[in-house]
Order: sequence, then structure tokens, then C-alpha cells
Amino acid sequence: MFQKVLIANRGEIALRIIRACREMGILSVAVYSTADAESMHVKLADEAYCVGGPKSADSYLKIDQIIAAAEVGNVDAIHPGYGFLAENAHFNEVCRESGFEFIGPSPQAMEKLGDKNTARSMAIANKVPVVPGSDGLITDDKDAIKIAEEIGFPVLIKATAGGGGKGMRVAEDPASLTSSLQQARNEAQAAFGNGGVYLERYIGSPRHVEVQVIADTHGNVCHLFERDCSVQRRHQKLIEEAPSPNLPDSKREAICEAAVRMIRGAQYSNAGTVEFIVDQNDDFYFIEVNARIQVEHPVTEMITGVDLIKEQIRVAAGKELSFSQDDLSVSGHAIECRINAENPNKNFMPSPGKIGLFFAPGGLGVRFDSHVYGGYTVPPHYDSMIGKLIVHRPTRDEAIETMRRALAEIQAEGIATTALFHDAVLQHPEFVSGKHDTKFVEREFTGN
Amino acid sequence: MFQKVLIANRGEIALRIIRACREMGILSVAVYSTADAESMHVKLADEAYCVGGPKSADSYLKIDQIIAAAEVGNVDAIHPGYGFLAENAHFNEVCRESGFEFIGPSPQAMEKLGDKNTARSMAIANKVPVVPGSDGLITDDKDAIKIAEEIGFPVLIKATAGGGGKGMRVAEDPASLTSSLQQARNEAQAAFGNGGVYLERYIGSPRHVEVQVIADTHGNVCHLFERDCSVQRRHQKLIEEAPSPNLPDSKREAICEAAVRMIRGAQYSNAGTVEFIVDQNDDFYFIEVNARIQVEHPVTEMITGVDLIKEQIRVAAGKELSFSQDDLSVSGHAIECRINAENPNKNFMPSPGKIGLFFAPGGLGVRFDSHVYGGYTVPPHYDSMIGKLIVHRPTRDEAIETMRRALAEIQAEGIATTALFHDAVLQHPEFVSGKHDTKFVEREFTGN
Repeated sequence: MFQKVLIANRGEIALRIIRACREMGILSVAVYSTADAESMHVKLADEAYCVGGPKSADSYLKIDQIIAAAEVGNVDAIHPGYGFLAENAHFNEVCRESGFEFIGPSPQAMEKLGDKNTARSMAIANKVPVVPGSDGLITDDKDAIKIAEEIGFPVLIKATAGGGGKGMRVAEDPASLTSSLQQARNEAQAAFGNGGVYLERYIGSPRHVEVQVIADTHGNVCHLFERDCSVQRRHQKLIEEAPSPNLPDSKREAICEAAVRMIRGAQYSNAGTVEFIVDQNDDFYFIEVNARIQVEHPVTEMITGVDLIKEQIRVAAGKELSFSQDDLSVSGHAIECRINAENPNKNFMPSPGKIGLFFAPGGLGVRFDSHVYGGYTVPPHYDSMIGKLIVHRPTRDEAIETMRRALAEIQAEGIATTALFHDAVLQHPEFVSGKHDTKFVEREFTGN
Repeated sequence: MFQKVLIANRGEIALRIIRACREMGILSVAVYSTADAESMHVKLADEAYCVGGPKSADSYLKIDQIIAAAEVGNVDAIHPGYGFLAENAHFNEVCRESGFEFIGPSPQAMEKLGDKNTARSMAIANKVPVVPGSDGLITDDKDAIKIAEEIGFPVLIKATAGGGGKGMRVAEDPASLTSSLQQARNEAQAAFGNGGVYLERYIGSPRHVEVQVIADTHGNVCHLFERDCSVQRRHQKLIEEAPSPNLPDSKREAICEAAVRMIRGAQYSNAGTVEFIVDQNDDFYFIEVNARIQVEHPVTEMITGVDLIKEQIRVAAGKELSFSQDDLSVSGHAIECRINAENPNKNFMPSPGKIGLFFAPGGLGVRFDSHVYGGYTVPPHYDSMIGKLIVHRPTRDEAIETMRRALAEIQAEGIATTALFHDAVLQHPEFVSGKHDTKFVEREFTGN
């Protein structure tokens, strides 16, 4: 097993990984920007190295600085967390070339799955349902209209290198398709350095359901059931839960098996998530694979009891999975709310600044993953999440009750948070019914 | 169901009860002493009333002031928590006479079980094993020697009104019995206003195992399995866990059934704990019933998923238990460490004062029940517990790993805590083996 692991990340996920390392008897090395010197991930790591200035580009994205810290710290492996360099196949490769195990999939698997069009072809090859769409990238606008008519309008234009909704357009008819294609290409080129786009049938009110998988390097692949992440705002997940409410058991089984086929077909190892959209008939379609641990992994941990980060570390060290599929089962219901330092009344404007009195929610059924504390200053340079509030109770109704109670407990004087916005979502009849789709928040709350 | 409940307590247990009320849609009313105005239980209750000065006798034990607060707050019921007035049958009766439901057993059941000798007789009547001993109180010292010789020396002298080790003496031979009897009587008279004592066989190195039970007013009684509380210092529990390690399944079943017989025989309703000592042959003997919720109830909540406080409130409102015995099962292993503001290096001297930077442990498997926060001042007037750190993991070994990790995370600048002392206990081979007895801490750590 590794003796020492560097965590190439910040905030709550860095702390999450430090916790797993400590429980495994592995020393942890933190990196931090000058803006993060007082973060709890720095205080709780066994060692910490400053890797640059406040901007991500100057620190958490600075590959040479992170590798230098790994060399000085004399670590065995690097955990990338999520975001920043987590799905950067080049970083993955540089880590390995520098003699550090990368806690994640191979650069090859990462690269293939990172290209959406390639991933789509892999899904088709592995009999994983995909949204009907173009057979590869669109090279000619006249072809695009013919393909779109075959698929049936409205169609969705998607960037092959995309993410976060960038390079994505809905086209209702041939005229709007032609103009939107060019906009999408330009946006994708600007955002990702790759203007390639393809077409899919536009599914209007889908639910977002994803399957957690983990594979070792010995050919063992397990799924850890599904999560529902349909509460989104501008393609950003706000609330995630497991299991997915209202999904028939036959579909639950089918979607989990499809995810395992996908991962096995991609010769993927380590933790990953296979994302799907689910339409009103409960039919599911592959969207993409996230080749990393995700923000919302705790809800899966709660219902399965599995420590996903520890399992990632074991697998990266060459060990076999510590369980087989038959060992895994679902217990109760878990919900996560991402608590952001944002003002819901001012269009979710970020609200960085110094926290005065701080009280973290606790008690039965409550898990709070956070790096903040009273006296901590939330820096303005990074995403605004200050913590993940997770609850686990025997039933979904009880989980909602506990979450609402816990949200009301959070006290963070000096900054605005999204806690009360979550409370409004949790008591909305559509959420309570579990029949909400990915447009729910925009339709019912924010109007955008 | 009740609309509004007053909590006649402070600190973490007051907060615990507020949480249950909030999840049930019940308004909560806190009471507080002038020393506790900044406690989180005051901030998080729906209403709060000051009931007097810092000393317990001037506030939390002041029955008329608490009843006055209940009248002003116009509550339906009063939850006493643990300690203070929780097992005061007179307070129980005054609550009911004043028109407030008391969330606990009847005053009659409380009174009978509160007298140790009566409780012992009830145990015998219900075929619950007791430590061989005198048949009632000792009235004549010559009888005492005869009885002690029948039981076999060494014997334990116990005060019938006792608790916390007061009025308790071990006698090795007839001479020491005679002198110790008088000391025990005097001590019991001074502490409890009742000098009655009785004799039991002295069991030298027992484990402390207790069974959580709950009964409604319709004749339904369930046990929620057992807890092991053998890690004690001066009769104060420090670490509790569930299930009890190394107890054979047949004994586990027998001890739980004995507890149910005891509670059924006492016509007891609401939550209670039947305490036993277990000797080296795994034979168990009744000690006493705690007619209240206990500090260590969370470990039972973790392994069963049952919210004990909610169930107490339901039962007090006249509802049937929300589960039957067959609905209950054990999942995983839970451990609780009582985190005290004490200095283990100075003979556990209390360490009240203002907390500067404070960080509460979190993450997978961790529950923290606490009313403190950065900037809070721990008052010197009450017991020194600042929080209960509870972990729940699939196995005992994993629970120990997670607890040790979580203990290391606690930061409470400005006061001393027992966190690192717990860490030392948790890594001791005797604790790891699960074979430690109630003398373990004194033998291996504190020397007293």
C-alpha cells in the first residue's frame, strides 16, 4: 500500500481524501494557493506545500508546481479529486511519467471517454442505449439538416469536447439549426479548443440518473447503484439523492448493468460515473462517463456503507476490489445539498468573505463535509461551495425531514448561503413526489 | 400529536431534543440559566426562557421556574433529557399535575425503579438474574456477616438510593464489613437522605452491558439491542459501543429478553435502559433501570436507524410504537466518545473557558452531537461534556479507525479536551480485543 499521497485539490474534497488516507494509515500531503493558507485541508494534512497564487491557473492547475510538491514530499501517488486537473489526461500521464501513481483511470481510458463522440460510439458498441443522433461529428450543414429530419426536430447540438452546457444549443427547425451550428462550434472552439459538434434528439424534460461504478485492474467491475441529480440550475447539480425515486426496479437493474458494460468495454479502472438521462417512459440514454470521483459520491457511500475514496486508493495501488457485486446492497435513502456561498435572492451571486459565528449541522442521520469554520474567509477565486450537507435515513420522507431540519441549523454569519433556497426546493410538491426533472428549478424557482 | 414541547435541560441533549421536535413539526421551548444564554440550544429553539442563575440548583433544578416557563410558553409536554430532573419522580408528578405530559415513564414506575432494592426484588420476580445478595436491606450487622458468609467474600455494600458509586464499599472479610457498613450508611444518608444499604457478591472484573428498551402505553415493549459501556473512569462512562463485542449470540438474546421482561413487569412506558454486569463466563446480572434517555443512546440509533427521541415523544403522546420487535435489526457497529472539556494530563481537571478556533469532525460515518462553536464559552457550572462523537461503520475495526481519525480532527483552541485520551484508549490492545472490563481505564491509564 502507498505510504504517502499528495492531494492535487483544495477545500472539502481535499479534506475528504485526507480523512480516507488517515484511516488507512497513509500520510497525506496537501497543496494550496496563497489564498487557501487557512483552509482546513491545509491544517489537517500531514504536510502542505504552497503551489502558487490565488488564481487556479497559477496554483491548482499548475502541473509543474504540483509535481514539484510531490517530489519534495516524496509521495507514492497523487489523488486529483474532482475539477481542476482531475480529468486532464496529460496531467494523468505526467504524474505516471514522474513516478507517481495517479489515483484514477489510465490516461488512455480518460482520453477516450473525455471525447463525447468517441464515448458515444463506445456506448453503442457495448449495447448501452444512446439518444438517437448523428453518426459522428457534423462536417457539412446540409447533411446536418437531413440527419436532424431523420432524428426529428427539435434536436440538440452538442460539443464533442463539451461540459457545463458550453457549445450546446437546441434547434427547433432547419433554419435555427444552421445558425445554431455555427454558434455552437464557435463557443466550443473558444471554450475547449475543439469545435467538433454532433446532433442528438432533444429530450425535453428528462431526469438525470447516473450510476456509480468502480473497477480494479484485475478485471473486476462493480456498480454501487444509481443517483438522481435532477435538481440542477444552469447544468450545475444542486441536490443529489440515492436511490433514484420512482425508477422501476427493472429499469434500475438495467441501467446499472448498462453502466457496468460501458466501464468493462472501456477497460476502465478506478471509480467512475456513467451518466444517463431518463425520459418520461423511464427509458434511459447514455450521456457521458465522468472519469473521476464526483462531488455527489457521499450519497452512494451512505446507502452502501462503502468508503469510495479508500476503494479508489486500494485499486490504484493494484489491489482487488474489497467486495463483489453480491456484497453490495442499498440501505435507506440519502440526499445531498451543496451549500454554496451565494445569495439566492441576488441571482445566486457569489458571496465570499469572512465567516463570523459558524455552526455546522449535526445529529442523527447528518453528515457534513466541509473545510470551513468560524473565522475562515471564503476566497473569491474558486467555486463557491462551502460544504456538502448529506443526510441518511430509512426512507426518503424521513431524509427530507432531516435535511430540512439540518439546513435550518446552519449558521454562517457574514456570508450568504443557499441553505434556505434548498429548503424551498425540498418542500416543493414536485420534489416531494420525486417526479421532478432537470428543468424543475428553472421552471419553478429561478426563471433562468 | 403535541404542538409544543419544553425541554428541561441544557447543552447537547437539549439540542438533540430540539432536532427531533423540528423534524416532527413540533415547536420547541428551551430553558436556560444566565450562564447559558449563548448556548446553541437557546439559539436553535423556537422560544427560550431564562429560568435562573448559573448554579443548577438555581435554574435547571428549579421546578417552579421550569413549570412557569412551560405555562408562559403554553406547551403540551416537557422532555427532561438526562441528569438534572430527569429521574425526579416529584418533578414528573408536578409536570402532570400542572397539565403537561411528562416525556418519560409514570412517576410510580420511576419511583419504584429508582429504589435499587425494590428494583432488585422486581428483577427477581420477573426471572431476571441478579447478583447473589441479601434479601432486602441490612438492619443488623450480625445478620450482615452471616449473609456475607453465605454469599461468599468479598461482598459489595450498596446504597439502595445510590448512584455514581456513592455509598458503595467492597468488604473482604467480616471485620472490614462491619466498619464499611457504617461508612456506607453515613455516606448514603449524606448523599441521598436515605441510609439503607444491602449486600451483593462482589464481581471483580465485570463488563458493563445495558439494553435499550422502549414501551408504549398499549402494552408493546421492544428492545433495541445492547450497548457495552465498560470504558469507565470513576463509574463515569467514557466510551460506549453497540453491539457489545465478544458477547455470544445466545447471551445477547437472553440479556435482551430479560430486559424486556423487567420493563414489562414494571408496567413501564417510554424509553429506558436495563443495566447489567457481565462476568468472565458471560453470565449477566441485573444492576438497575435508568428511567430516562441516556447519554449514550446515539450508538443504538446508529445501529438500528431508530430515532429514539422521536419515539419517546410519540409514546408520551399516547401513540403505539412505530415498529415491532421483528422490524428491528442491527446494522454495522457504532462507538461513542464523550468529549469533555477536561485536561487528561492534570487528572481530568475541568477546563472551562472561551473556545477560539473550533472545528467539528465530519465526513463518512461521523456524527457529532454538540452545542458548542467557535467563540462559545464553556461555563464552569455544569458537567464538562462539550460533545458526543459517534461513528458508525460496517465493522468494529473500521469504526475504531474512523473514530481515531475523527478525534484527531477536533480543534478547540483555548480549552483542553479528552480527545487524545480517547485516542490512547482506542489503540490499546485490550480495547481493540473488545475484552476490556470496567476496571480497564483505572488499571491501564489513570491509576485511580
